[in-house]
Amino acid sequence: MENLFNEMSQSKPSLHTCLSPALLHLYDLANSVVVIIDVFRATSTIASALHNGARSVIPVDSVPKAIEIAKSIDGIAAGERDGMIAEGLQHGNSPLEYSRDFIGNRILVLTTTNGTRLLQMALDRNADTIISGSFPNLSKVCQFLLDSGKSVILGCAGWKDRFNLEDTMFAGAVIDRIGDHFTIHCDSSRMAVDMYRQQKADLIGFAPQLTHYHRLVNRFGLIKDIEFCLTIDTAPVLSVYRDGKLVAK
Amino acid sequence: MENLFNEMSQSKPSLHTCLSPALLHLYDLANSVVVIIDVFRATSTIASALHNGARSVIPVDSVPKAIEIAKSIDGIAAGERDGMIAEGLQHGNSPLEYSRDFIGNRILVLTTTNGTRLLQMALDRNADTIISGSFPNLSKVCQFLLDSGKSVILGCAGWKDRFNLEDTMFAGAVIDRIGDHFTIHCDSSRMAVDMYRQQKADLIGFAPQLTHYHRLVNRFGLIKDIEFCLTIDTAPVLSVYRDGKLVAK
Repeated sequence: MENLFNEMSQSKPSLHTCLSPALLHLYDLANSVVVIIDVFRATSTIASALHNGARSVIPVDSVPKAIEIAKSIDGIAAGERDGMIAEGLQHGNSPLEYSRDFIGNRILVLTTTNGTRLLQMALDRNADTIISGSFPNLSKVCQFLLDSGKSVILGCAGWKDRFNLEDTMFAGAVIDRIGDHFTIHCDSSRMAVDMYRQQKADLIGFAPQLTHYHRLVNRFGLIKDIEFCLTIDTAPVLSVYRDGKLVAK
Repeated sequence: MENLFNEMSQSKPSLHTCLSPALLHLYDLANSVVVIIDVFRATSTIASALHNGARSVIPVDSVPKAIEIAKSIDGIAAGERDGMIAEGLQHGNSPLEYSRDFIGNRILVLTTTNGTRLLQMALDRNADTIISGSFPNLSKVCQFLLDSGKSVILGCAGWKDRFNLEDTMFAGAVIDRIGDHFTIHCDSSRMAVDMYRQQKADLIGFAPQLTHYHRLVNRFGLIKDIEFCLTIDTAPVLSVYRDGKLVAK
Protein backbone atom coordinates (compact mmCIF):
# COMPACT_ATOMS: atom_id res chain seq x y z
CA MET A 1 0.00 0.00 0.00
CA GLU A 2 2.79 2.33 0.90
CA ASN A 3 4.57 1.53 -2.35
CA LEU A 4 1.44 2.14 -4.33
CA PHE A 5 0.94 5.43 -2.57
CA ASN A 6 4.50 6.43 -3.30
CA GLU A 7 4.10 5.54 -6.92
CA MET A 8 0.89 7.49 -7.14
CA SER A 9 2.28 10.52 -5.43
CA GLN A 10 5.30 10.44 -7.71
CA SER A 11 3.34 10.03 -10.93
CA LYS A 12 3.07 13.26 -12.86
CA PRO A 13 0.53 14.19 -15.52
CA SER A 14 1.75 13.74 -19.10
CA LEU A 15 2.60 16.51 -21.55
CA HIS A 16 2.69 16.23 -25.34
CA THR A 17 3.36 18.71 -28.12
CA CYS A 18 1.20 18.35 -31.24
CA LEU A 19 3.04 19.98 -34.14
CA SER A 20 0.13 20.39 -36.55
CA PRO A 21 -3.68 20.23 -36.53
CA ALA A 22 -3.27 17.30 -38.94
CA LEU A 23 -1.68 15.30 -36.10
CA LEU A 24 -4.27 16.12 -33.42
CA HIS A 25 -6.04 12.76 -33.85
CA LEU A 26 -2.93 11.04 -32.42
CA TYR A 27 -3.55 12.47 -28.97
CA ASP A 28 -6.15 11.81 -26.29
CA LEU A 29 -7.73 15.16 -25.50
CA ALA A 30 -10.60 13.90 -23.37
CA ASN A 31 -8.78 14.26 -20.04
CA SER A 32 -6.36 17.01 -20.99
CA VAL A 33 -5.95 20.73 -21.03
CA VAL A 34 -5.36 21.72 -24.66
CA VAL A 35 -3.39 24.91 -25.25
CA ILE A 36 -4.23 26.44 -28.64
CA ILE A 37 -1.05 28.12 -29.95
CA ASP A 38 -1.12 30.47 -32.94
CA VAL A 39 1.65 32.95 -32.16
CA PHE A 40 1.36 34.83 -35.49
CA ARG A 41 -1.18 36.09 -34.62
CA ALA A 42 -4.53 34.76 -33.41
CA THR A 43 -3.62 33.75 -29.86
CA SER A 44 -1.47 36.87 -29.41
CA THR A 45 -4.41 38.98 -30.56
CA ILE A 46 -6.77 37.15 -28.21
CA ALA A 47 -4.41 37.81 -25.28
CA SER A 48 -4.14 41.46 -26.30
CA ALA A 49 -7.91 41.96 -26.59
CA LEU A 50 -8.73 40.21 -23.29
CA HIS A 51 -5.91 41.98 -21.46
CA ASN A 52 -7.24 45.29 -22.74
CA GLY A 53 -10.67 44.60 -21.31
CA ALA A 54 -12.62 42.81 -24.02
CA ARG A 55 -15.56 41.01 -22.39
CA SER A 56 -14.85 37.97 -24.54
CA VAL A 57 -13.51 36.78 -27.88
CA ILE A 58 -15.83 34.59 -29.93
CA PRO A 59 -13.86 32.48 -32.42
CA VAL A 60 -15.82 31.63 -35.57
CA ASP A 61 -14.91 29.80 -38.74
CA SER A 62 -16.16 32.14 -41.46
CA VAL A 63 -16.38 35.81 -42.32
CA PRO A 64 -20.18 35.84 -42.86
CA LYS A 65 -20.64 34.22 -39.44
CA ALA A 66 -18.33 36.79 -37.83
CA ILE A 67 -20.35 39.62 -39.37
CA GLU A 68 -23.70 38.08 -38.44
CA ILE A 69 -22.80 37.35 -34.81
CA ALA A 70 -21.09 40.72 -34.29
CA LYS A 71 -24.20 42.46 -35.61
CA SER A 72 -26.55 40.55 -33.30
CA ILE A 73 -24.54 41.31 -30.13
CA ASP A 74 -23.10 44.70 -31.05
CA GLY A 75 -19.62 43.17 -31.18
CA ILE A 76 -16.64 43.83 -33.40
CA ALA A 77 -16.22 41.50 -36.35
CA ALA A 78 -12.59 40.90 -37.25
CA GLY A 79 -10.35 38.41 -38.94
CA GLU A 80 -7.79 37.52 -41.53
CA ARG A 81 -7.36 35.24 -44.47
CA ASP A 82 -3.84 34.50 -45.69
CA GLY A 83 -2.41 37.14 -43.37
CA MET A 84 -4.59 40.05 -44.56
CA ILE A 85 -7.76 41.62 -43.17
CA ALA A 86 -10.46 39.33 -44.54
CA GLU A 87 -12.61 40.74 -47.33
CA GLY A 88 -15.79 42.28 -45.96
CA LEU A 89 -14.26 43.11 -42.56
CA GLN A 90 -12.89 46.38 -41.20
CA HIS A 91 -10.66 44.87 -38.54
CA GLY A 92 -7.95 42.25 -38.82
CA ASN A 93 -5.85 39.94 -36.74
CA SER A 94 -3.31 42.44 -35.42
CA PRO A 95 -2.85 42.46 -31.63
CA LEU A 96 -2.03 46.16 -31.83
CA GLU A 97 -5.46 47.06 -33.19
CA TYR A 98 -7.10 46.14 -29.92
CA SER A 99 -6.24 48.94 -27.54
CA ARG A 100 -8.18 49.43 -24.32
CA ASP A 101 -9.97 52.47 -25.82
CA PHE A 102 -11.22 50.41 -28.71
CA ILE A 103 -11.93 46.98 -27.27
CA GLY A 104 -12.61 47.69 -23.56
CA ASN A 105 -15.92 46.09 -22.47
CA ARG A 106 -16.72 44.98 -26.02
CA ILE A 107 -16.91 41.55 -27.65
CA LEU A 108 -14.51 40.59 -30.43
CA VAL A 109 -15.82 38.10 -33.00
CA LEU A 110 -12.69 36.70 -34.64
CA THR A 111 -12.05 34.43 -37.60
CA THR A 112 -8.52 33.38 -38.57
CA THR A 113 -6.79 30.94 -40.94
CA ASN A 114 -5.32 28.48 -38.46
CA GLY A 115 -6.04 29.14 -34.80
CA THR A 116 -9.83 29.18 -35.04
CA ARG A 117 -9.80 25.90 -36.92
CA LEU A 118 -7.57 24.13 -34.37
CA LEU A 119 -9.82 25.30 -31.54
CA GLN A 120 -12.85 23.83 -33.30
CA MET A 121 -10.99 20.55 -33.82
CA ALA A 122 -10.10 20.39 -30.11
CA LEU A 123 -13.79 20.94 -29.27
CA ASP A 124 -14.84 18.19 -31.68
CA ARG A 125 -12.40 15.82 -30.01
CA ASN A 126 -13.85 16.52 -26.56
CA ALA A 127 -10.94 18.33 -24.96
CA ASP A 128 -11.45 18.58 -21.21
CA THR A 129 -10.35 22.22 -21.07
CA ILE A 130 -9.20 24.61 -23.79
CA ILE A 131 -7.07 27.68 -23.24
CA SER A 132 -5.15 29.84 -25.71
CA GLY A 133 -1.51 30.80 -25.40
CA SER A 134 1.24 32.90 -26.91
CA PHE A 135 4.33 34.66 -25.66
CA PRO A 136 2.34 37.71 -24.45
CA ASN A 137 0.57 35.52 -21.87
CA LEU A 138 3.18 32.79 -21.28
CA SER A 139 3.36 33.06 -17.49
CA LYS A 140 -0.41 32.90 -17.08
CA VAL A 141 -0.58 29.78 -19.26
CA CYS A 142 2.16 28.07 -17.25
CA GLN A 143 0.55 28.89 -13.93
CA PHE A 144 -2.81 27.53 -15.08
CA LEU A 145 -1.26 24.27 -16.32
CA LEU A 146 0.55 23.77 -13.02
CA ASP A 147 -2.59 24.52 -11.00
CA SER A 148 -4.87 22.26 -13.04
CA GLY A 149 -2.86 19.10 -12.35
CA LYS A 150 -4.17 17.59 -15.60
CA SER A 151 -2.36 16.21 -18.62
CA VAL A 152 -1.45 18.78 -21.24
CA ILE A 153 -1.52 18.91 -25.03
CA LEU A 154 0.37 21.87 -26.47
CA GLY A 155 -1.43 22.31 -29.80
CA CYS A 156 0.44 24.20 -32.50
CA ALA A 157 -1.86 25.73 -35.11
CA GLY A 158 0.88 25.84 -37.74
CA TRP A 159 0.18 27.26 -41.20
CA LYS A 160 -2.41 25.35 -43.19
CA ASP A 161 -1.37 22.15 -41.43
CA ARG A 162 2.35 22.73 -41.98
CA PHE A 163 4.76 22.80 -39.07
CA ASN A 164 5.92 26.23 -37.99
CA LEU A 165 8.68 27.26 -35.65
CA GLU A 166 7.04 30.11 -33.76
CA ASP A 167 4.22 27.94 -32.40
CA THR A 168 6.69 25.14 -31.65
CA MET A 169 8.99 27.53 -29.80
CA PHE A 170 6.10 28.73 -27.64
CA ALA A 171 5.43 25.09 -26.74
CA GLY A 172 9.15 24.91 -25.96
CA ALA A 173 8.91 27.99 -23.74
CA VAL A 174 6.16 26.33 -21.68
CA ILE A 175 8.24 23.15 -21.36
CA ASP A 176 11.35 25.19 -20.50
CA ARG A 177 9.48 26.69 -17.55
CA ILE A 178 7.31 23.87 -16.22
CA GLY A 179 8.36 20.67 -18.04
CA ASP A 180 9.79 19.21 -14.83
CA HIS A 181 6.29 18.93 -13.42
CA PHE A 182 5.16 16.58 -16.18
CA THR A 183 6.00 13.16 -17.57
CA ILE A 184 7.29 13.80 -21.09
CA HIS A 185 7.99 10.94 -23.52
CA CYS A 186 7.55 12.85 -26.72
CA ASP A 187 10.18 13.74 -29.31
CA SER A 188 8.11 16.77 -30.38
CA SER A 189 8.39 18.23 -26.88
CA ARG A 190 12.10 17.50 -26.68
CA MET A 191 12.65 19.23 -30.02
CA ALA A 192 10.42 22.17 -29.06
CA VAL A 193 12.33 22.94 -25.88
CA ASP A 194 15.69 22.53 -27.62
CA MET A 195 14.68 24.95 -30.38
CA TYR A 196 13.36 27.44 -27.82
CA ARG A 197 16.47 27.28 -25.64
CA GLN A 198 18.66 27.79 -28.70
CA GLN A 199 16.85 31.05 -29.54
CA LYS A 200 15.35 32.34 -26.30
CA ALA A 201 18.01 34.98 -25.72
CA ASP A 202 16.81 36.86 -28.81
CA LEU A 203 13.54 35.59 -30.27
CA ILE A 204 12.94 38.80 -32.19
CA GLY A 205 16.42 38.61 -33.69
CA PHE A 206 15.67 35.05 -34.80
CA ALA A 207 12.32 36.01 -36.36
CA PRO A 208 13.69 36.70 -39.88
CA GLN A 209 14.53 32.96 -40.06
CA LEU A 210 10.83 32.08 -39.82
CA THR A 211 8.83 31.38 -42.98
CA HIS A 212 5.85 33.19 -41.50
CA TYR A 213 7.93 36.29 -40.78
CA HIS A 214 8.41 36.81 -44.49
CA ARG A 215 4.73 36.25 -45.16
CA LEU A 216 3.84 38.99 -42.65
CA VAL A 217 6.72 41.44 -42.82
CA ASN A 218 7.73 41.37 -46.47
CA ARG A 219 4.16 41.33 -47.73
CA PHE A 220 2.33 43.37 -45.10
CA GLY A 221 4.98 45.27 -43.14
CA LEU A 222 3.82 43.96 -39.78
CA ILE A 223 7.12 44.14 -37.92
CA LYS A 224 5.49 45.70 -34.83
CA ASP A 225 3.04 42.82 -34.72
CA ILE A 226 5.87 40.31 -34.84
CA GLU A 227 7.65 42.04 -31.97
CA PHE A 228 4.51 42.06 -29.84
CA CYS A 229 3.78 38.40 -30.54
CA LEU A 230 7.28 37.31 -29.53
CA THR A 231 7.55 39.36 -26.34
CA ILE A 232 6.86 37.54 -23.09
CA ASP A 233 4.08 38.68 -20.74
CA THR A 234 3.07 41.91 -22.46
CA ALA A 235 -0.60 40.86 -22.17
CA PRO A 236 -0.65 38.85 -18.93
CA VAL A 237 -4.10 37.34 -18.98
CA LEU A 238 -5.39 33.76 -18.92
CA SER A 239 -7.68 33.04 -21.85
CA VAL A 240 -10.09 30.14 -21.23
CA TYR A 241 -12.70 28.77 -23.61
CA ARG A 242 -16.19 28.48 -22.13
CA ASP A 243 -19.58 28.22 -23.75
CA GLY A 244 -18.41 29.34 -27.15
CA LYS A 245 -16.20 32.19 -25.97
CA LEU A 246 -12.69 32.86 -24.82
CA VAL A 247 -12.82 34.82 -21.57
CA ALA A 248 -10.23 36.19 -19.17
CA LYS A 249 -9.92 34.24 -15.99
CA MET B 1 16.34 36.73 -73.00
CA GLU B 2 19.61 37.16 -71.19
CA ASN B 3 17.77 38.06 -67.96
CA LEU B 4 15.54 35.06 -68.28
CA PHE B 5 18.55 32.85 -68.76
CA ASN B 6 20.19 34.33 -65.70
CA GLU B 7 17.10 33.83 -63.64
CA MET B 8 16.77 30.28 -64.80
CA SER B 9 20.37 29.43 -64.18
CA GLN B 10 20.14 30.91 -60.69
CA SER B 11 16.91 29.18 -59.72
CA LYS B 12 17.51 26.15 -57.58
CA PRO B 13 15.20 23.20 -57.05
CA SER B 14 13.16 23.30 -53.85
CA LEU B 15 13.66 21.12 -50.79
CA HIS B 16 11.07 20.36 -48.12
CA THR B 17 11.10 18.19 -45.02
CA CYS B 18 7.88 16.29 -44.30
CA LEU B 19 7.84 15.42 -40.59
CA SER B 20 5.20 12.67 -40.63
CA PRO B 21 3.39 10.45 -43.16
CA ALA B 22 0.21 12.22 -41.98
CA LEU B 23 1.56 15.46 -43.53
CA LEU B 24 2.62 13.99 -46.87
CA HIS B 25 -0.52 15.27 -48.62
CA LEU B 26 0.76 18.84 -48.12
CA TYR B 27 3.60 18.34 -50.59
CA ASP B 28 3.75 17.96 -54.35
CA LEU B 29 5.61 14.72 -55.02
CA ALA B 30 4.91 14.46 -58.74
CA ASN B 31 8.09 16.20 -59.84
CA SER B 32 10.26 15.40 -56.84
CA VAL B 33 12.71 12.89 -55.54
CA VAL B 34 11.22 11.53 -52.29
CA VAL B 35 13.69 10.21 -49.73
CA ILE B 36 12.05 7.65 -47.43
CA ILE B 37 13.68 8.01 -43.99
CA ASP B 38 13.15 5.41 -41.26
CA VAL B 39 16.42 5.48 -39.35
CA PHE B 40 15.29 2.99 -36.65
CA ARG B 41 15.49 0.74 -38.57
CA ALA B 42 13.91 0.01 -41.97
CA THR B 43 16.01 2.26 -44.17
CA SER B 44 19.18 1.40 -42.25
CA THR B 45 18.40 -2.29 -42.74
CA ILE B 46 17.71 -1.74 -46.45
CA ALA B 47 21.09 0.00 -46.84
CA SER B 48 22.79 -2.81 -44.93
CA ALA B 49 21.19 -5.57 -47.02
CA LEU B 50 21.88 -3.89 -50.37
CA HIS B 51 25.42 -2.99 -49.38
CA ASN B 52 26.02 -6.60 -48.41
CA GLY B 53 24.98 -7.82 -51.82
CA ALA B 54 21.22 -8.41 -51.65
CA ARG B 55 19.85 -8.44 -55.21
CA SER B 56 16.92 -6.33 -54.05
CA VAL B 57 14.64 -5.50 -51.13
CA ILE B 58 10.91 -5.86 -51.78
CA PRO B 59 8.90 -3.75 -49.31
CA VAL B 60 5.46 -5.17 -48.57
CA ASP B 61 2.69 -4.11 -46.24
CA SER B 62 1.79 -7.35 -44.45
CA VAL B 63 3.39 -10.44 -42.96
CA PRO B 64 1.33 -12.93 -45.03
CA LYS B 65 2.34 -11.10 -48.21
CA ALA B 66 5.99 -11.15 -47.15
CA ILE B 67 5.82 -14.92 -46.58
CA GLU B 68 3.96 -15.58 -49.85
CA ILE B 69 6.27 -13.51 -52.03
CA ALA B 70 9.43 -14.82 -50.38
CA LYS B 71 8.25 -18.36 -50.97
CA SER B 72 7.50 -17.77 -54.64
CA ILE B 73 10.93 -16.25 -55.42
CA ASP B 74 13.07 -18.13 -52.89
CA GLY B 75 13.62 -14.89 -50.97
CA ILE B 76 13.95 -14.15 -47.28
CA ALA B 77 10.80 -12.96 -45.54
CA ALA B 78 11.49 -10.51 -42.74
CA GLY B 79 9.91 -7.76 -40.78
CA GLU B 80 8.87 -6.20 -37.53
CA ARG B 81 5.75 -5.05 -35.78
CA ASP B 82 6.12 -2.67 -32.84
CA GLY B 83 9.88 -3.11 -32.85
CA MET B 84 9.92 -6.93 -32.60
CA ILE B 85 10.33 -9.66 -35.21
CA ALA B 86 6.81 -9.99 -36.60
CA GLU B 87 4.87 -13.10 -35.60
CA GLY B 88 5.26 -15.82 -38.19
CA LEU B 89 8.66 -14.60 -39.41
CA GLN B 90 12.16 -15.82 -38.59
CA HIS B 91 13.99 -12.62 -39.48
CA GLY B 92 13.43 -9.10 -38.26
CA ASN B 93 14.33 -5.53 -39.01
CA SER B 94 17.86 -5.47 -37.62
CA PRO B 95 20.53 -4.19 -40.04
CA LEU B 96 23.05 -6.48 -38.34
CA GLU B 97 21.15 -9.62 -39.34
CA TYR B 98 21.95 -9.05 -42.98
CA SER B 99 25.62 -10.00 -43.34
CA ARG B 100 27.12 -10.68 -46.76
CA ASP B 101 27.18 -14.43 -46.02
CA PHE B 102 23.48 -14.44 -45.31
CA ILE B 103 21.99 -11.94 -47.74
CA GLY B 104 24.51 -11.89 -50.64
CA ASN B 105 22.75 -12.45 -53.98
CA ARG B 106 19.41 -13.07 -52.28
CA ILE B 107 16.17 -11.08 -52.19
CA LEU B 108 14.87 -9.64 -48.92
CA VAL B 109 11.08 -9.28 -48.62
CA LEU B 110 10.59 -6.77 -45.83
CA THR B 111 7.57 -5.48 -43.92
CA THR B 112 7.91 -2.79 -41.23
CA THR B 113 5.68 -0.58 -39.11
CA ASN B 114 6.45 2.82 -40.59
CA GLY B 115 8.91 2.87 -43.50
CA THR B 116 7.05 0.45 -45.75
CA ARG B 117 3.83 2.39 -45.30
CA LEU B 118 5.41 5.75 -46.16
CA LEU B 119 6.94 4.27 -49.30
CA GLN B 120 3.52 3.03 -50.41
CA MET B 121 2.03 6.47 -49.73
CA ALA B 122 4.73 8.14 -51.84
CA LEU B 123 3.94 5.70 -54.68
CA ASP B 124 0.22 6.43 -54.40
CA ARG B 125 0.97 10.14 -54.63
CA ASN B 126 2.97 9.68 -57.83
CA ALA B 127 6.43 10.53 -56.61
CA ASP B 128 8.77 11.06 -59.55
CA THR B 129 11.59 9.07 -57.94
CA ILE B 130 11.81 7.25 -54.60
CA ILE B 131 15.02 6.44 -52.78
CA SER B 132 15.60 5.35 -49.19
CA GLY B 133 18.06 6.96 -46.81
CA SER B 134 19.60 6.70 -43.38
CA PHE B 135 22.89 7.62 -41.78
CA PRO B 136 24.65 4.46 -43.09
CA ASN B 137 24.16 5.70 -46.68
CA LEU B 138 24.05 9.48 -46.16
CA SER B 139 26.76 10.41 -48.68
CA LYS B 140 25.21 8.32 -51.44
CA VAL B 141 21.82 9.95 -50.85
CA CYS B 142 23.32 13.45 -50.98
CA GLN B 143 25.24 12.74 -54.16
CA PHE B 144 22.14 11.37 -55.89
CA LEU B 145 20.04 14.40 -54.88
CA LEU B 146 22.70 16.78 -56.22
CA ASP B 147 23.04 14.85 -59.47
CA SER B 148 19.29 14.56 -60.11
CA GLY B 149 18.73 18.32 -60.17
CA LYS B 150 15.12 17.77 -59.10
CA SER B 151 13.12 19.08 -56.18
CA VAL B 152 13.41 17.04 -53.00
CA ILE B 153 11.01 15.87 -50.31
CA LEU B 154 12.75 14.45 -47.26
CA GLY B 155 10.04 12.13 -45.94
CA CYS B 156 10.31 11.14 -42.28
CA ALA B 157 8.50 7.88 -41.50
CA GLY B 158 8.10 8.79 -37.81
CA TRP B 159 6.44 6.35 -35.43
CA LYS B 160 2.79 5.63 -36.20
CA ASP B 161 2.45 9.13 -37.66
CA ARG B 162 4.14 10.82 -34.70
CA PHE B 163 7.16 13.04 -35.21
CA ASN B 164 10.48 11.51 -34.29
CA LEU B 165 13.87 13.06 -33.89
CA GLU B 166 16.11 10.46 -35.52
CA ASP B 167 14.37 10.71 -38.89
CA THR B 168 14.25 14.49 -38.59
CA MET B 169 17.97 14.65 -37.78
CA PHE B 170 18.78 12.56 -40.85
CA ALA B 171 16.83 15.10 -42.92
CA GLY B 172 18.93 17.72 -41.13
CA ALA B 173 22.13 15.89 -42.03
CA VAL B 174 21.19 16.00 -45.72
CA ILE B 175 20.41 19.72 -45.47
CA ASP B 176 23.61 20.35 -43.52
CA ARG B 177 25.59 18.89 -46.42
CA ILE B 178 23.75 20.00 -49.54
CA GLY B 179 21.10 22.51 -48.46
CA ASP B 180 22.93 25.36 -50.22
CA HIS B 181 22.09 23.79 -53.56
CA PHE B 182 18.35 24.08 -52.96
CA THR B 183 15.73 26.77 -52.35
CA ILE B 184 14.42 26.14 -48.83
CA HIS B 185 11.41 28.04 -47.44
CA CYS B 186 10.30 25.49 -44.91
CA ASP B 187 10.38 25.73 -41.11
CA SER B 188 10.61 21.92 -40.87
CA SER B 189 13.89 21.98 -42.78
CA ARG B 190 15.24 24.85 -40.74
CA MET B 191 14.40 22.99 -37.52
CA ALA B 192 15.81 19.70 -38.84
CA VAL B 193 19.20 21.18 -39.68
CA ASP B 194 19.36 23.06 -36.37
CA MET B 195 18.60 19.90 -34.40
CA TYR B 196 21.18 17.93 -36.38
CA ARG B 197 23.90 20.55 -35.98
CA GLN B 198 23.23 20.67 -32.24
CA GLN B 199 23.88 16.93 -31.92
CA LYS B 200 26.06 15.94 -34.86
CA ALA B 201 29.27 15.77 -32.82
CA ASP B 202 27.87 12.80 -30.89
CA LEU B 203 24.67 11.34 -32.30
CA ILE B 204 25.13 8.06 -30.43
CA GLY B 205 25.63 9.93 -27.17
CA PHE B 206 22.38 11.82 -27.85
CA ALA B 207 20.42 8.63 -28.63
CA PRO B 208 19.19 8.00 -25.05
CA GLN B 209 17.18 11.24 -25.41
CA LEU B 210 15.11 9.69 -28.21
CA THR B 211 11.73 8.13 -27.44
CA HIS B 212 12.45 5.36 -29.92
CA TYR B 213 15.76 4.52 -28.24
CA HIS B 214 13.89 3.44 -25.14
CA ARG B 215 11.45 1.40 -27.20
CA LEU B 216 14.34 -0.49 -28.79
CA VAL B 217 17.04 -0.58 -26.14
CA ASN B 218 15.10 -0.90 -22.92
CA ARG B 219 12.62 -3.40 -24.32
CA PHE B 220 14.74 -5.34 -26.82
CA GLY B 221 18.39 -4.58 -25.99
CA LEU B 222 19.22 -3.41 -29.49
CA ILE B 223 22.03 -1.02 -28.65
CA LYS B 224 24.25 -2.34 -31.48
CA ASP B 225 21.44 -1.68 -33.93
CA ILE B 226 21.11 1.88 -32.70
CA GLU B 227 24.83 2.49 -33.11
CA PHE B 228 24.80 1.10 -36.66
CA CYS B 229 21.76 3.17 -37.62
CA LEU B 230 23.36 6.42 -36.40
CA THR B 231 26.80 5.92 -37.93
CA ILE B 232 27.48 7.71 -41.20
CA ASP B 233 28.43 5.81 -44.37
CA THR B 234 28.83 2.34 -42.90
CA ALA B 235 26.71 0.93 -45.75
CA PRO B 236 27.55 3.26 -48.65
CA VAL B 237 25.02 2.25 -51.26
CA LEU B 238 22.29 4.13 -53.10
CA SER B 239 18.91 2.45 -52.70
CA VAL B 240 16.43 3.30 -55.48
CA TYR B 241 12.86 2.06 -55.85
CA ARG B 242 12.08 0.55 -59.25
CA ASP B 243 9.32 -1.81 -60.36
CA GLY B 244 8.34 -2.81 -56.85
CA LYS B 245 11.85 -3.26 -55.49
CA LEU B 246 14.60 -1.27 -53.86
CA VAL B 247 17.84 -1.92 -55.71
CA ALA B 248 21.41 -0.73 -55.38
CA LYS B 249 22.42 1.78 -57.99
